[in-house]
Amino acid sequence: MTSYDPGNIFAKILRGEIPAHKIYEDDDAFAFMDVMPQGTGHTLVIPKVPSRNILDADPATLSRLMPVVQKIAIAAKEAFEADGVTVIQFNEPASGQTIYHLHFHVIPRFEGVPLKPHSGTMEDQEILAANARKMRDALAA
Amino acid sequence: MTSYDPGNIFAKILRGEIPAHKIYEDDDAFAFMDVMPQGTGHTLVIPKVPSRNILDADPATLSRLMPVVQKIAIAAKEAFEADGVTVIQFNEPASGQTIYHLHFHVIPRFEGVPLKPHSGTMEDQEILAANARKMRDALAA
Repeated sequence: MTSYDPGNIFAKILRGEIPAHKIYEDDDAFAFMDVMPQGTGHTLVIPKVPSRNILDADPATLSRLMPVVQKIAIAAKEAFEADGVTVIQFNEPASGQTIYHLHFHVIPRFEGVPLKPHSGTMEDQEILAANARKMRDALAA
Repeated sequence: MTSYDPGNIFAKILRGEIPAHKIYEDDDAFAFMDVMPQGTGHTLVIPKVPSRNILDADPATLSRLMPVVQKIAIAAKEAFEADGVTVIQFNEPASGQTIYHLHFHVIPRFEGVPLKPHSGTMEDQEILAANARKMRDALAA
């Protein structure tokens, strides 16, 4: 297994070096909008401690992170009036992992709407900002 | 949200009413082979307490379950000499959930091999038994 590279994009977001559409933060976790969403409201939940993926994470990191993943999943279903929620976590390139800081995808799902592939193009920033607002409102409700 | 139906297949497996290719069990969690695998070594990890999915689960259930999901993911990568591992958790039918007891899919991934769709046909029982043995051996190592 390759080790953790502190130059990855999510580490930069955690250090405030690059911006993100932030939804939630606590001592252990950070949640923000995926800028290349596979569906409306696609959110990412990451731990603050450096972990490449689930294979090298401290089990205690996972135990603290999952209630946040749950909180975000519940809020996402409500914020976007979704019919369901898909939670996905990729490990290593063969699985589809492209950024090497542990992250859980939380994707609202709608009847009959398949997941879009990661398009490689950025979503409109205003749409991301509006969706982040909806998520924050749902979390505050 | 619909409530928990104790007649679901995974509840029956937990009660020993129907068989499963068991890989791991502790006080809180149970892991076994998916009988309709989306890839070689596709394993399921479930909590013992009744939870429909992540939306209604006790957060403490998730905190106890995730280190087991991790253990299974690490073992799956080793057992099948996989290049990666995909972890997926579906909530409600729009997301692809078909059995309403919380479960995490742990799927070994190989370079260039896409996930198969859930085929609706059962994998050969001898193959499932052999893969379960490989997983148990990896966990015991």
